[in-house]
This record gives sequence, C-alpha cells and structure tokens, in this order.
Amino acid sequence: MTGQDIMGFVAGAFVTCSLVPQIIRVFKLKSAREISILFTGLMLVGILMWLGYGISKSLFPVILWNAIGAVLVFTLLFGKLRYGK
Amino acid sequence: MTGQDIMGFVAGAFVTCSLVPQIIRVFKLKSAREISILFTGLMLVGILMWLGYGISKSLFPVILWNAIGAVLVFTLLFGKLRYGK
Repeated sequence: MTGQDIMGFVAGAFVTCSLVPQIIRVFKLKSAREISILFTGLMLVGILMWLGYGISKSLFPVILWNAIGAVLVFTLLFGKLRYGK
Repeated sequence: MTGQDIMGFVAGAFVTCSLVPQIIRVFKLKSAREISILFTGLMLVGILMWLGYGISKSLFPVILWNAIGAVLVFTLLFGKLRYGK
C-alpha cells in the first residue's frame, strides 16, 4: 500500500465516520427538523456514484468508504423521514 | 475526458451540492442544535485530506469537489458555532 492509499483510507475514515455522531444526535434528540431532506437525498445519490467511480478506477479506499457511507447516509435519511418536522 | 471522469464529476457535484440546502436550512432556521459539531469537524478534516489525496494522484474531480466542499463544510461549521446550542 502506498502513502497515497493510506491518505485516502484516513481521509475516507474521517468523512465517513463524521456521519456517525450526526446519526447518533438525530436518534438521541428524536428530532431532525434542521436536517435537510435534500442534503440526505443528494448525498446518498452522490455517494452511490462515487462508489461506481471507485469501482471503475479500482480505487480501493474510494470503494470501501463510499460503501460504508451509503449505509450511514441511508440511516440518516431514515432518521429524517422518521423524526423530521 | 473519459466516462469515468464524468462519473466522478457528477458524483462530486451531488455530494458537494448536497451541503448547500443543509447550510441554507441552518441559516434560515437560525438553529443548529441538531447538527453535530463532531460531524462538521471530522468532515472538514476528512475533506481536506481527500483534497491532498486527489492532488497526489492527480484526480481532477476529487480535487475540484473537495476544494469546494471544504468551503461549504467550513460555512456549516460556522453556522453550527453561531446557532448551535
């Protein structure tokens, strides 16, 4: 693994893991009024496309983190639909 | 530009632009209680690292969208610090 790959792994870890405290916050407060539905929807579509980009270019960190990210954003979208407004 | 590059551009457009309605929502509601500070902070660090990864691998869509994303997440962090609890 090159230094670049390691940087990609760590970068993806930060971005993807950032969603975890946001999801926890929504489910703990049982409120998602301030969360934009467009934010979660557009991000989900975009992450699925990054996943396709990563697969087509064999960029392993891009594939890994976007696969996990898709699950997390889907969870946040679920929270928004359940607790939003 | 290859089809892969186009997919990267469009994917990045979705993920990065998803932040815009979220920022608008926080500044419109003048409230960011539900936004996690860890979410914005970790995402900002991660995006800056993706920017470094993109530069080191000359992945133009990764560079472009993460540069714009950094500005947007910084704006959201500013909103959180101003309106959050």
